[in-house]
Amino acid sequence: MKAICVVSGGLDSTTMLYKVLNEGYKPIVLTFLYGQKHSLEVTYAQRTCDKLGLEHQLLPIPKLLGNALTDNDVEVPKEDYSVETQKITVVPNRNMIFLSIAASYAIAHKSEKVFYAAHKSDAMYPDCTKEFVWAMNTALVCGNYGKVRVEAPFIDMTKAEIVALGEELRVPFEDTWSCYDPVEITEPYPPKPELPIPYTSPDMGLRRIVGYTHCGVCGTCRERKRAFVEAGVDDPTRYAK
Amino acid sequence: MKAICVVSGGLDSTTMLYKVLNEGYKPIVLTFLYGQKHSLEVTYAQRTCDKLGLEHQLLPIPKLLGNALTDNDVEVPKEDYSVETQKITVVPNRNMIFLSIAASYAIAHKSEKVFYAAHKSDAMYPDCTKEFVWAMNTALVCGNYGKVRVEAPFIDMTKAEIVALGEELRVPFEDTWSCYDPVEITEPYPPKPELPIPYTSPDMGLRRIVGYTHCGVCGTCRERKRAFVEAGVDDPTRYAK
Repeated sequence: MKAICVVSGGLDSTTMLYKVLNEGYKPIVLTFLYGQKHSLEVTYAQRTCDKLGLEHQLLPIPKLLGNALTDNDVEVPKEDYSVETQKITVVPNRNMIFLSIAASYAIAHKSEKVFYAAHKSDAMYPDCTKEFVWAMNTALVCGNYGKVRVEAPFIDMTKAEIVALGEELRVPFEDTWSCYDPVEITEPYPPKPELPIPYTSPDMGLRRIVGYTHCGVCGTCRERKRAFVEAGVDDPTRYAK
Repeated sequence: MKAICVVSGGLDSTTMLYKVLNEGYKPIVLTFLYGQKHSLEVTYAQRTCDKLGLEHQLLPIPKLLGNALTDNDVEVPKEDYSVETQKITVVPNRNMIFLSIAASYAIAHKSEKVFYAAHKSDAMYPDCTKEFVWAMNTALVCGNYGKVRVEAPFIDMTKAEIVALGEELRVPFEDTWSCYDPVEITEPYPPKPELPIPYTSPDMGLRRIVGYTHCGVCGTCRERKRAFVEAGVDDPTRYAK
């Protein structure tokens, strides 16, 4: 049975993808490019789909403004979210946009279900609530002859419970990305040659980026760390702090 | 007061734009590129916004598949719509996608309203019904702290009533486009020189496209013609047939 899965490359949606596969669906994976600063997550979604041999569509949509995740003028909070700091990370109407495009794909591909990974720990985001899922499904039924509906299998689960489920399903958590503020891993450049000759070129202090780690202090990093601790699961993530 | 207007370049949404302006709103106009074959309508939306001096955003979104308006393999019906022929012109979930992106723009621009031109004569399309507008507004309220809602001022009006309103508002109907199957207007190419010398170059039968007319026979052309007749308003449209 075909299913459309909205996957960001984060821990929740990647775990959902493994769950959907485990239940025997044939998923088509959609990842949206909406001008997010933390587009690194997208490469993690690609990596997962490549590993699993799944069809993956990267879908650019218009840049969504007015929030810390896309506006360069608005900084991502560096502490545990409060009601105020969390609000500036709300991308207006993001999930409705993702789900409505995903529903269109589902109908075109004759799939009846769109999966998305909203969960209980995110319920302070209005578009991650049961009420929103219910209302979206009402609108989808009205607008599409009842051909498609949204499934939110994690809507009653906390992030820690998702980690526990992921452990059961053997999700490679190192292939998921949460951080909104990645820290560069660098090495000296040019690298010292390994030849047995005297190395004369002066060290100019130049370095090149060879990768990124999670920062460990932004709101989502804190949530990620806490979920692993609460679930009692080893956290393979490399954090800068 | 700011308002977001979803305008295709067609007769209904252009008339709506004039109505919204007439009511004193300051509209920001959004036109979506979703892979429609009849993208000519977009240039009409641009023309209208240029004339009115309005901010106009052309927003490309992923190509929406599985219907006659975007798939090259599926032909646009050439007769009055029946239940069956009309169904293949349904672009899955199109209006929900447009309205959800427009709602995001509205919130980012601190506008509380998104206008779209669904009307009673289109109510066989499920996403042009009152039920759909109601359900969309429920989902928008749930998902966005009640910051934005959809207004569908034509939902109880027929297309003929929209034409009559447009006539009142002095909408230049020739600046609107309905046809799904535009007919080329061509002229001989190269043109004969207007110099008083004998013209020796042979006529190769070549022509170049200098414009387009409405076909006059596709479903939307028929609806357009009928609306003018019913409203008793002169139709300035040039039809090929």
